[in-house]
Amino acid sequence: MKLVCKKSIILNGLQIVSKAVPVRTTFPILECILIDASKGEIKLIANDTDLGIETVIEGDIVEPGILALEAKIFVEMIRKLPENDITIVSDGNYNTVITCEKTKFNLLGKSGDDFSYLPKIEKKNNIVISQFTLKEVIRQTIFSIADNDNKIMMGELFEVTDDHLKIVSLDGHRISLRNIALKNSYDHIKVIVPGKALNEISKILTGEADKDVTIFFTDRHIMFEFDSTIVLSRLIEGEYFQIDNMLSKDYESKIHISKKELYDCIDRASLMVKEGDKKPIILDVKDRNLELMINSVVGSMNENIDIQKTGTDMKIGFNPKFLMDALKVIDDDEIDMYLINPKSPCIIRDNDGSYVYLILPVNFTVSN
Amino acid sequence: MKLVCKKSIILNGLQIVSKAVPVRTTFPILECILIDASKGEIKLIANDTDLGIETVIEGDIVEPGILALEAKIFVEMIRKLPENDITIVSDGNYNTVITCEKTKFNLLGKSGDDFSYLPKIEKKNNIVISQFTLKEVIRQTIFSIADNDNKIMMGELFEVTDDHLKIVSLDGHRISLRNIALKNSYDHIKVIVPGKALNEISKILTGEADKDVTIFFTDRHIMFEFDSTIVLSRLIEGEYFQIDNMLSKDYESKIHISKKELYDCIDRASLMVKEGDKKPIILDVKDRNLELMINSVVGSMNENIDIQKTGTDMKIGFNPKFLMDALKVIDDDEIDMYLINPKSPCIIRDNDGSYVYLILPVNFTVSN
Repeated sequence: MKLVCKKSIILNGLQIVSKAVPVRTTFPILECILIDASKGEIKLIANDTDLGIETVIEGDIVEPGILALEAKIFVEMIRKLPENDITIVSDGNYNTVITCEKTKFNLLGKSGDDFSYLPKIEKKNNIVISQFTLKEVIRQTIFSIADNDNKIMMGELFEVTDDHLKIVSLDGHRISLRNIALKNSYDHIKVIVPGKALNEISKILTGEADKDVTIFFTDRHIMFEFDSTIVLSRLIEGEYFQIDNMLSKDYESKIHISKKELYDCIDRASLMVKEGDKKPIILDVKDRNLELMINSVVGSMNENIDIQKTGTDMKIGFNPKFLMDALKVIDDDEIDMYLINPKSPCIIRDNDGSYVYLILPVNFTVSN
Repeated sequence: MKLVCKKSIILNGLQIVSKAVPVRTTFPILECILIDASKGEIKLIANDTDLGIETVIEGDIVEPGILALEAKIFVEMIRKLPENDITIVSDGNYNTVITCEKTKFNLLGKSGDDFSYLPKIEKKNNIVISQFTLKEVIRQTIFSIADNDNKIMMGELFEVTDDHLKIVSLDGHRISLRNIALKNSYDHIKVIVPGKALNEISKILTGEADKDVTIFFTDRHIMFEFDSTIVLSRLIEGEYFQIDNMLSKDYESKIHISKKELYDCIDRASLMVKEGDKKPIILDVKDRNLELMINSVVGSMNENIDIQKTGTDMKIGFNPKFLMDALKVIDDDEIDMYLINPKSPCIIRDNDGSYVYLILPVNFTVSN
């Protein structure tokens, strides 16, 4: 095989597919990036069998061929080379020479025979959204998946109904929900996408508003197609949680508050919480005033924030991190919080239903 | 005690003195920052008994007093408060209230009775250099102190002779030497300053060329005085190494080379060196050409660089990191390297003797 590519182009391609190279694996071939230049285009592929990424890069194929190179060292070599044309040549034994200007790297590649290519999937059900929207909605929900618990909680619900896409994540203490309007109407789709795949894809997406992503769904896979790249992930099997009755619109008390003031206050209060400690922040809701209080071995803090309130007064406690996680991803300057009682979840949502964040309260002793 | 200070001013002062708060200690009082507002000025002090820092900040003393607060939480509290006036009040039991706008923190302080103030030193021998020069010269030498070996190697030699200051660090594999011209002539001074103190002081120095640092020397201490801050460190006791005869000006071969080309080449080559591996980079010095080669289990690399050479051809091996460390802190675009033979150190120095970097070579097998 012999290829010539611009450094910036091959580096960008390698950084994209690297996201599917597993950190630890017992199959050495999975630690490789495959260069497939056997069919008239230069395709870079990595696949950890749950998540696979393929991207096509520009360059000259002087001699077609297939070659697998250990991802980590290959990416570093390309990164360290000067900004110029890079030539990659391999012989029948996969002895590989990478040259650029006066630098020459030698390393031993592998045949691609054992490499698992991405499975071919049927391109039937698909939706189209902008790269910007997909990147944003992942950021706005990914924080509330569970890291190692119930397998279903480690993924996000993607549900298409007519002309909107609903994305949900939850971890047993909170629920994040986003609704996205689609340009067209589609058949009903309901799948659970692994959080890991969403995390990686959000790093690859440039997030441009005028570039689209086509998302294909099958029974077993979800595939994201954008620019010259394909990201394919296995789905999580099972039924997602019924959340609709948890997101009731009934409430006893509604608070209208500046998001920044509330966030900054909780941020200060969380200084009082040492790692592993579960001290709640107490919200004392009164007419026109919200007092926030926290009390720990470190010391205590209290602060007052002006609010607009309708409904009953209430004292309710929360894990400060859960409130901050939700506030951090809401773009509105002013938000509405809906409370029922100190034992029932608080809901932060806007009027047109584009977002809903539910957070369970924490018990606190009366002395607080 | 009751004080009122601007947030930015007190935060800056706390960040300065924090550098002398030990990470681990068996004396809880050392984990505190002392606020001494008993004598008409607000002084912040931290002291781990090897290194002590004192800074005076602007603010109003409403009620004089002394108070010690646990450094970590105190700094974080101040950092998280809004940009406005901060009031710190403590009562007779050191119950402390920190308020800013509508936020109120409560924490328990300590009396300053057990706190060790900085020892008073005799301000006799001193030199003056700019903050810029001191910050630079620390950066240019600190990398070659030993981290945990001979106690003397963990410090740097500061030697004043007439109107220049010589600063030396060495770790058994290499020597870094810088000469700085002083504006005045001084008596001879020769001390060993702990690397830790130099590291911390270089973080505090703003590095402005038009601001000076006065450095005081006693038998046991070095004290840096600048802006409203005093940094005082114990010296390392003992005799520094005799290095003059190691820095011989004899050589067999002199190479004139672009620093950037050499650095970038070694940077690429060091990809071939895995953590803990001791693969040398081989320099094959010929007329007009330097070939660099490295060979490891990962693969191999070679590259040619145009040079000007006088003297004999030579093949010599080095630890790539040691070459890079020195090249990184030399500002010249072109450098001169002096070689004697493959078993003798290489010296990189300029003509006016403002810097000398000595690096011991590494043995390599002929097959390389």
